Amino acid sequence: MRIALIGAGRIGAVHARSIAASPDAELVLVADPVDGAAARLASAHGAAATTEVGDVFADDTVDAVVVASPTAHHVEQILASVEAGKAVLAEKPVDLDLARADRCLAEVGDRAHRVMLGFNRRFDAGFAEIHRRVAAGEIGDLEQLTIISRDPAAPPVGYLAGSGGIFRDMTIHDLDMARFFLGDIVAVQAVPQRLDPAFAEIDDYDAAIVTLTAASGAVATIINSRHCAAGYDQRLEAFGPRGALRAENHTATSVVLDAAGTSGARGPYLDFFLERYAAAYTSELAAFVAAVREGSAPTPSLLDGRQALALADAATESARTGRSVAPAPVPSAASSAAV
Amino acid sequence: MRIALIGAGRIGAVHARSIAASPDAELVLVADPVDGAAARLASAHGAAATTEVGDVFADDTVDAVVVASPTAHHVEQILASVEAGKAVLAEKPVDLDLARADRCLAEVGDRAHRVMLGFNRRFDAGFAEIHRRVAAGEIGDLEQLTIISRDPAAPPVGYLAGSGGIFRDMTIHDLDMARFFLGDIVAVQAVPQRLDPAFAEIDDYDAAIVTLTAASGAVATIINSRHCAAGYDQRLEAFGPRGALRAENHTATSVVLDAAGTSGARGPYLDFFLERYAAAYTSELAAFVAAVREGSAPTPSLLDGRQALALADAATESARTGRSVAPAPVPSAASSAAV
Amino acid sequence: MRIALIGAGRIGAVHARSIAASPDAELVLVADPVDGAAARLASAHGAAATTEVGDVFADDTVDAVVVASPTAHHVEQILASVEAGKAVLAEKPVDLDLARADRCLAEVGDRAHRVMLGFNRRFDAGFAEIHRRVAAGEIGDLEQLTIISRDPAAPPVGYLAGSGGIFRDMTIHDLDMARFFLGDIVAVQAVPQRLDPAFAEIDDYDAAIVTLTAASGAVATIINSRHCAAGYDQRLEAFGPRGALRAENHTATSVVLDAAGTSGARGPYLDFFLERYAAAYTSELAAFVAAVREGSAPTPSLLDGRQALALADAATESARTGRSVAPAPVPSAASSAAV
Amino acid sequence: MRIALIGAGRIGAVHARSIAASPDAELVLVADPVDGAAARLASAHGAAATTEVGDVFADDTVDAVVVASPTAHHVEQILASVEAGKAVLAEKPVDLDLARADRCLAEVGDRAHRVMLGFNRRFDAGFAEIHRRVAAGEIGDLEQLTIISRDPAAPPVGYLAGSGGIFRDMTIHDLDMARFFLGDIVAVQAVPQRLDPAFAEIDDYDAAIVTLTAASGAVATIINSRHCAAGYDQRLEAFGPRGALRAENHTATSVVLDAAGTSGARGPYLDFFLERYAAAYTSELAAFVAAVREGSAPTPSLLDGRQALALADAATESARTGRSVAPAPVPSAASSAAV
Repeated sequence: MRIALIGAGRIGAVHARSIAASPDAELVLVADPVDGAAARLASAHGAAATTEVGDVFADDTVDAVVVASPTAHHVEQILASVEAGKAVLAEKPVDLDLARADRCLAEVGDRAHRVMLGFNRRFDAGFAEIHRRVAAGEIGDLEQLTIISRDPAAPPVGYLAGSGGIFRDMTIHDLDMARFFLGDIVAVQAVPQRLDPAFAEIDDYDAAIVTLTAASGAVATIINSRHCAAGYDQRLEAFGPRGALRAENHTATSVVLDAAGTSGARGPYLDFFLERYAAAYTSELAAFVAAVREGSAPTPSLLDGRQALALADAATESARTGRSVAPAPVPSAASSAAV
Repeated sequence: MRIALIGAGRIGAVHARSIAASPDAELVLVADPVDGAAARLASAHGAAATTEVGDVFADDTVDAVVVASPTAHHVEQILASVEAGKAVLAEKPVDLDLARADRCLAEVGDRAHRVMLGFNRRFDAGFAEIHRRVAAGEIGDLEQLTIISRDPAAPPVGYLAGSGGIFRDMTIHDLDMARFFLGDIVAVQAVPQRLDPAFAEIDDYDAAIVTLTAASGAVATIINSRHCAAGYDQRLEAFGPRGALRAENHTATSVVLDAAGTSGARGPYLDFFLERYAAAYTSELAAFVAAVREGSAPTPSLLDGRQALALADAATESARTGRSVAPAPVPSAASSAAV
Repeated sequence: MRIALIGAGRIGAVHARSIAASPDAELVLVADPVDGAAARLASAHGAAATTEVGDVFADDTVDAVVVASPTAHHVEQILASVEAGKAVLAEKPVDLDLARADRCLAEVGDRAHRVMLGFNRRFDAGFAEIHRRVAAGEIGDLEQLTIISRDPAAPPVGYLAGSGGIFRDMTIHDLDMARFFLGDIVAVQAVPQRLDPAFAEIDDYDAAIVTLTAASGAVATIINSRHCAAGYDQRLEAFGPRGALRAENHTATSVVLDAAGTSGARGPYLDFFLERYAAAYTSELAAFVAAVREGSAPTPSLLDGRQALALADAATESARTGRSVAPAPVPSAASSAAV
Repeated sequence: MRIALIGAGRIGAVHARSIAASPDAELVLVADPVDGAAARLASAHGAAATTEVGDVFADDTVDAVVVASPTAHHVEQILASVEAGKAVLAEKPVDLDLARADRCLAEVGDRAHRVMLGFNRRFDAGFAEIHRRVAAGEIGDLEQLTIISRDPAAPPVGYLAGSGGIFRDMTIHDLDMARFFLGDIVAVQAVPQRLDPAFAEIDDYDAAIVTLTAASGAVATIINSRHCAAGYDQRLEAFGPRGALRAENHTATSVVLDAAGTSGARGPYLDFFLERYAAAYTSELAAFVAAVREGSAPTPSLLDGRQALALADAATESARTGRSVAPAPVPSAASSAAV
């Protein structure tokens, strides 16, 4: 499969490496309007480069597009790719505006099976193992899902100002994970925290607790923080009547120190997502390539991306009002894309 | 110190053993209206027995009273003990009715330093160690407290019907723990679960997520369930800007099995509270005896008991309405008891 | 059961507490020639005291004797107790001289079922659990036993000079544990270490590796050191064709720290044997009391004590010669005591 | 760097992948006399193939040779490579015969810096981290090294018959690891086990304990078994006066199960060396390529390979005699190769 990559930044480079590692995919074109960025990444992988994103859609030899551009461009590039007959793997979120995401869904329509959303954590070996074992009934019907998800350090204020807020930017990964395990969510409650006063100035939060109630009665609890001294804190626990399955944090090696005053001390958690989820990105690309080759609908879908955004919006409103909020339903115009 | 014990049931027996193990205390009288119960427990410890609870207050040689009777009797026995000039260690909760608890506080008045509430978990070595290390500043200002607290199995429906509901009966321990770490709570949100339909019939829940926001901005998350296959799940994690301290579950031994298909397998969690918190009950009694001997106010206080109940009421209302609820403030008539 | 205690030192105090905690035993007499020692310990437990050890054997109301005196007195006090018709729980080792231990066995003869040797580690809940699960066949026939046993710090040189050397003083516990799991030992190899030159001066070692081959073909490996920065390092792993069972070190609480640069850090290992094996001493006394009451032979037996000493002697010789050494067989005169 | 690979079997395929993953190396030729083997592996990596091993030495465009042939060919192929002016990375062991290894060393002479031995475990991230931290003095002078190394299951008897015995075939990795940490070894003691009687028929063992005493006084203990129910058991602990560093086993994910009767249960250990040491093989090749490019002597050296073999011979003799055995010194003719 011949793949073009839009966006030659940090996450674009991750996708370029995943494509290089795939026996079934080839990186043929890298597009980035920033002068030199596309050329540098392309040359490292023997691909062509362009500063004109339109070249991607015009290239008839390109089978699929990986969209790793800034969020504001996701919708237009997803649509242009689909229009050009190409399969798409787009980074999350679909957009920061739910109405735009809904219009995207509506326009994609029955071509939704050609679009995959990059919620890479679904492909983490540990989370995927828990999902598989829960689905196999090992712990009985899932009752409580607990996600602890803390970044090592907050991004720069400049980034945060345009991020859409903690729920759309950071929690959205955890919201998708909650849906991955629990299915339809009927109610969202969010308790926000502003520990660093700088977050008040940009009308954002640096920590939050979000609870999501599923139609089944199961509840997911998400505990977020923009900082964590020990590294990238990424834990998940699925609890049911027959037991619990939990994924613990990762360290670089299994080395343990026992010394005066301490025992069992390991290194810090892997830091940051490029390292912690390196294998997940590779598995994600492999799943995309396999789905496109087989003509099957890849998961997570464009609808999954829309639903995570709807949950983020509900969390934002709950944080403001202190009330339980139901996520916005999918408009009928968009529902034809519901894969 | 000469101690009388009211209530010769399961928890009364725990206190009798703690008193026996104390070099500074002596069990002199056991009172229980159930025929034979007091006599059996008393004879095992060389104490006198009575079926008339009033004998406890009338006995001038008794220095202190441990109240381990059914909840409905706590308030009257606390008051009678104080009136009789005795120190009191009363089991939680103060009462199931906040107004009665407030009247109790008002009547106790400036004798509140003679009353201790039996929130035994504050004396667990692990939780106490974390509290001490947090207070010492090891992880910086506390930002997020996560308590996972699951019972091995639900009590009989007969018990549940008179328990006051999950928040007043079970969560109240965790609510006190949240206050122990976070101080004053300004907002409570509760997401209840009814996984077993039998709980709907008694208008109660069998699981819940409760979040508490402190005046400081810190948030506590409590995850409760009335059942847990692996035993009594009792974990706590304190998170701050400089690190996290967490107490893991206890197993009977440190034995680990590695075999075909598995590695690192330990035994189940200690089950149930009598075993898991055995040492905590002993430390609790020691703290009570030491405070009474020194004439200092024991902790947790009667006010702590009232505040935990107020939080349970707030959680109950939040579970019903889906809204954030502020706990009821201490009435002025009761505030003189605020130690 | 009325018990007299010989020896009011550190280990005597441990036994006094175990006796106090037993519902079936009573400490009635404490004997210690050191002026004041017996009196102090006796008064704390409501027992009589004497500086004349002979008073113990002369007291007809004494049912059993706990021998916690210096090693040089063990044989004479075991014999005198047995002669006086009393059951005995004697601290290890029987003696530092194998010939004297053999004479003790021969003189005790068919009264050996009245004597128990204080290898307290057999009563540690973890080691006992592994022994029970191995015996139940959980891991198949035991093939390799690995014991890591390191003291927190070396005792004073004055103590070491009269200790009989590391194998008879320290390793002897591990040698008994090897026999507990493996049964008869046919060959011993020891690799000694003198890391601190001071140990050369007293012709002793401060570390060693000892391997023991059982008649079954199973092998035990003992790794000893007189010091360990993280505390009292006491681990054991039993390995068989179907799996492995291991007992990990104990810490005071289950509290774990995750902070900058580290994760999973617990406190140091429990330190030292009084703390690490506190419950084992209590269980040991309970087993002794139960065996005496039932008239059954307590385990570990006097013969177990002799065999551990024979292994220590074999290790001493192997350490000197670099050769595999067979332990000295039990002389026929002593074999009647072989319970 | 243009690399030729001799041997297209299982380990040859591992090296082919490592070369493919290296940005600085290219696989240009695969040689294997087995019909079709070289062609299959070569085609997967875009390399040429030959059934004539001599083609490797004759190809002037080849810079370096990876020797992954059966052990009997290692010496001749190392020598032929060096004669042809090529750098060599040869799989362990150098040979099963110490005299042949010594002759190889002598013939290689001052070209020894062109030869690297494939003791891949030195490149395991965990073992390498411990080595680095020990070298940095974190635990003080190393006193005791404990290596537990158990294969998941014994290889076929056909393989074992030509393997040179457990010490030369399996333990040799651990013997090299002991030298990596402890340097010169002065005495070896081995306690062999024949748990499966089939091993007696081929005059081999299926388990063993080997202790090695270093010139420094430090001692290494190696615990080997040809089977392990839980997978490939690969642990290492370095102990010194200031603490201990240990590498624990690896599991596929960090997922833990808590259920009825169990807690903390992970999956089995990674199984087998291709999976457990996948990253180590890659790091090994990178170290080889880097050393050759810089013209520096790669480690482990040909001498390291010879010394591990000498330790294996000493262990074999000790297992037979029950005595401590000194390893054979390097003959003067071979010592010029001592890098």
